[in-house]
Amino acid sequence: MTDKIQRGTHSLADPAGHTANDDALKEVCVASATVHRGKFLTLKQDIVRLPDGKQTGREYIVHPGAVMMIPLFDDGTVLMERQFRYPVGEVMLEFPAGKLDPQEGAQRCGERELQEETGYTARRWDYLTRIHPVISYSTEFIDIFLARDLTHGEAQLDDGEFLETFITPVGQVIDWVRSGRISDVKTIIGAFWLEKVISGAWQPGEQALPR
Amino acid sequence: MTDKIQRGTHSLADPAGHTANDDALKEVCVASATVHRGKFLTLKQDIVRLPDGKQTGREYIVHPGAVMMIPLFDDGTVLMERQFRYPVGEVMLEFPAGKLDPQEGAQRCGERELQEETGYTARRWDYLTRIHPVISYSTEFIDIFLARDLTHGEAQLDDGEFLETFITPVGQVIDWVRSGRISDVKTIIGAFWLEKVISGAWQPGEQALPR
Repeated sequence: MTDKIQRGTHSLADPAGHTANDDALKEVCVASATVHRGKFLTLKQDIVRLPDGKQTGREYIVHPGAVMMIPLFDDGTVLMERQFRYPVGEVMLEFPAGKLDPQEGAQRCGERELQEETGYTARRWDYLTRIHPVISYSTEFIDIFLARDLTHGEAQLDDGEFLETFITPVGQVIDWVRSGRISDVKTIIGAFWLEKVISGAWQPGEQALPR
Repeated sequence: MTDKIQRGTHSLADPAGHTANDDALKEVCVASATVHRGKFLTLKQDIVRLPDGKQTGREYIVHPGAVMMIPLFDDGTVLMERQFRYPVGEVMLEFPAGKLDPQEGAQRCGERELQEETGYTARRWDYLTRIHPVISYSTEFIDIFLARDLTHGEAQLDDGEFLETFITPVGQVIDWVRSGRISDVKTIIGAFWLEKVISGAWQPGEQALPR
């Protein structure tokens, strides 16, 4: 164990623990300002104090958080979406997902988004994990659920929302990750988790949904 | 195969193919403006034409792209970093990564960042895959490499850059993904890929580095 800033490489006794060593890395907010408030994105510019006492700027997007669900049918197929994503200029293959509304719980958000985007409802929801897609410039997190016991109904896409849904075997999804055809991080992680759960190596519900 | 906008669920003959169906999803740029140019982040606001001919706005961050490397030692351990990430307010466990400099190739970027952040150089580089962390509001991509035949040297952290490095077995990394202690998407995906490569199920070099 050491408390100096690392310039070589060592083996920490517990690198995953939240230990005193964190103080040698932490940045503290000195001042915070909103520099842009768009229709979808809010951009902040903070001044932070670094571990050595110096100050620097940090720019980041404020995001409400999101939920992704992996809709798994009893026959080992999953429900996916094709959606054009303007910033990357491609039709992406994705599991359904959506942003949290204010005060909305994660599972409720998942139920709402799944129903709106695909028409499906799921009777069985299992929380898997929380991921952070953009740790250097966004507060975003995505809570991932496995959604089973699916029943089909009518989708209610928002005005101006265009997407297609399709059903495909889990093995195909894994193969699209291997080939690079799936490059959306939440969907890649969902595919790997799904493989772990289906093989029995990992169990849903091992992690608790953060408050 | 169908070319109508989907409001039910169907099985596309080839949902992963770039087919005529994409035209029912594509958005076309009508106008583009930079609304904020910060020290690190550039924010754009575009007007796009939707598949139904209507127009709407799209806000997104312009990002140069990044590279992540998985530094794997011969004994089955990997080199990782602990770094405080201000937007999420936590010390994260990560594989080394960094942003592309202008006109810099991906592997050259990886070599530079690995050396600067950790002091290590790798003689063997294998490209694995490209991921998109933020498809709804950033152009960012991350190219992932496996870095082997490692030699230790002196790190050269940028002024104001604070991080610790440590070495841990691959099995431990996978376990931190399972428990949620690792929540950074690029590192999660690196861990899953590493498990596939080490088991022999997937081979490095199956994908070609995009131009």
